[in-house]
Amino acid sequence: MVETHSIEHFLTEVKTTIDARLAEYIELKRLEAERVSPSSVELVEGVAAITLRGGKRFRPIVLSAAFRAVNAAGSLDDTISAGAALELLQSFLLIHDDWMDQDDERRGGPAVHVIYRGAYPDRHLANSLGILAGDLASTYAWELMLDAPFPATRREHGLRRFVELQKEVYFGQHLDVTANPDVTRMHDLKTGSYTVRGPLLLGAILGDASEDAMAALVAYGDPLGRAFQLRDDILGTFGDQATTGKPAGNDIRVGKHNALIDALERRVPETERGVFDRAFGQTDASDQDVAAAAKLLIESGARAEVEQTLLSLRDAAVAELSVDSLNEEGRALLRGIADKLVVRSA
Amino acid sequence: MVETHSIEHFLTEVKTTIDARLAEYIELKRLEAERVSPSSVELVEGVAAITLRGGKRFRPIVLSAAFRAVNAAGSLDDTISAGAALELLQSFLLIHDDWMDQDDERRGGPAVHVIYRGAYPDRHLANSLGILAGDLASTYAWELMLDAPFPATRREHGLRRFVELQKEVYFGQHLDVTANPDVTRMHDLKTGSYTVRGPLLLGAILGDASEDAMAALVAYGDPLGRAFQLRDDILGTFGDQATTGKPAGNDIRVGKHNALIDALERRVPETERGVFDRAFGQTDASDQDVAAAAKLLIESGARAEVEQTLLSLRDAAVAELSVDSLNEEGRALLRGIADKLVVRSA
Repeated sequence: MVETHSIEHFLTEVKTTIDARLAEYIELKRLEAERVSPSSVELVEGVAAITLRGGKRFRPIVLSAAFRAVNAAGSLDDTISAGAALELLQSFLLIHDDWMDQDDERRGGPAVHVIYRGAYPDRHLANSLGILAGDLASTYAWELMLDAPFPATRREHGLRRFVELQKEVYFGQHLDVTANPDVTRMHDLKTGSYTVRGPLLLGAILGDASEDAMAALVAYGDPLGRAFQLRDDILGTFGDQATTGKPAGNDIRVGKHNALIDALERRVPETERGVFDRAFGQTDASDQDVAAAAKLLIESGARAEVEQTLLSLRDAAVAELSVDSLNEEGRALLRGIADKLVVRSA
Repeated sequence: MVETHSIEHFLTEVKTTIDARLAEYIELKRLEAERVSPSSVELVEGVAAITLRGGKRFRPIVLSAAFRAVNAAGSLDDTISAGAALELLQSFLLIHDDWMDQDDERRGGPAVHVIYRGAYPDRHLANSLGILAGDLASTYAWELMLDAPFPATRREHGLRRFVELQKEVYFGQHLDVTANPDVTRMHDLKTGSYTVRGPLLLGAILGDASEDAMAALVAYGDPLGRAFQLRDDILGTFGDQATTGKPAGNDIRVGKHNALIDALERRVPETERGVFDRAFGQTDASDQDVAAAAKLLIESGARAEVEQTLLSLRDAAVAELSVDSLNEEGRALLRGIADKLVVRSA
């Protein structure tokens, strides 16, 4: 049995190593751009800003834990390039998503397309540079994947998984921007895939997992991905701006139809939701109106219901770990990750 | 000595095989999207529209010729996946570029971000779907590269070249959209890299070329890339809309500062360029004004000067092929390609 102390140590170790690798990599990319096209360093700076501004490094942690769970003897250091690749992939996706969603803030700072407005007042040009910085981050992600220090066939298997993961994310984003009513599929593709399932499978592939171990990790990842989304939904309404980087009640003002709204609609008849409708989808709603709407989500039991579902999903995920194909240390890490994910505040 | 007949045969063979492979691949991607997220097939359709609408398949031809020049025994069929990858990469770049340049037409049809305006009148949403279709095309390019049927280490060497090529293109595009005065560098990075140097090196890597052969191909590709750009400049002003897919005189109206303008400025004093300035950079210039400006480019000798430079660059490229590290059949193909490129009308 691995103790809580060890889990915290693991999380810190992976995050610290990833942060260092990303800082070192970005510095190399600055120098490279300087040689090839000096003024294009500003494109690297856009990637640097969003990549180094923080982030929980959740995906690399999941990847490293899955790797460890199938390969007790493997060096965690070997997983760092692939973990850093996932962070660059996320930078790319966030940069493009923020422009698509016209979100001007990210991780407590300006979104990348907004950063370029400083030097380029022409909005379309600034947006173009944002998209281009996203494209560059995507290529950097591939470069880091190619650096993963494993036998070529195993690395290529990982690269193929990287392709699948990306296609799923684009389809999920497509469903999101076109407001497709199949929200469950959208979340599975957009969030579940690249946040949980993708990193788990990448770690497993690089760790040379058995079929059984892969199946167990997928079974663990499925409810966990859904739990991750529910926590996102709760944070989008009840989160603290200081930790989430988004204004409190953001999802209410934006009118995001999430699990909380689902629960509310089942619990409160339409005629009694006036106080909610005053703020929902009203981008100029007052703080008081938003607070009143949030209060209804609590008093109706909608929030408690979602919290309960979240805990059940966590339990369902953890139950899938009890298989011989995953080693005990890895199981403990994955249990710890499931707990972390459920109680996270950002 | 390979005859003209053989060169034509080679060009047709590669183009036909690439066209078939692309059609087959895109059909598989439609079916895949249908399984994963049926409504997202419209994202694949955006990629399909621009990829299958035609195109000279110039980059796959260059790749296959370089492969053949270093590997007389190798099967051309083996180069088709990597060639198709270059076409998908180009689809991705064209989709993003057209949105950045606010070009609404491409290859004689609507640009991809314009296609989506049919189903989505909201301009930002249509643009977002265009960017997303571009992202998808980029991932498809990687998938096709991973399918290249070569030993893993050689394929990975190719993937690393694919990374370098992409970074160069982004930097070139950055210089282009920010109107950087270093136009030579911009063209080398944006056009030379992924049109000539990149495909040559990819073909050479997949063909397991010697260092000497690589060096010869780079020496051949450098002037050829510049020649390609000069032909583009001439076609942008004097090209026929039916073959180029762009209105005649397009570059004059857009005010593109290219090699023709450079020559004009050296040949005609500023005070005598009134007829030119009336149309240059004037998007609403009349056809007559554009024709008069084009006439000055001819009468001043600017066009003839650029045509002459173009031929010299072609000769310089071809001269680099006389090395033992390239086989005779390959040299003939690369000579034929240089000729084609110089006289192309689209």
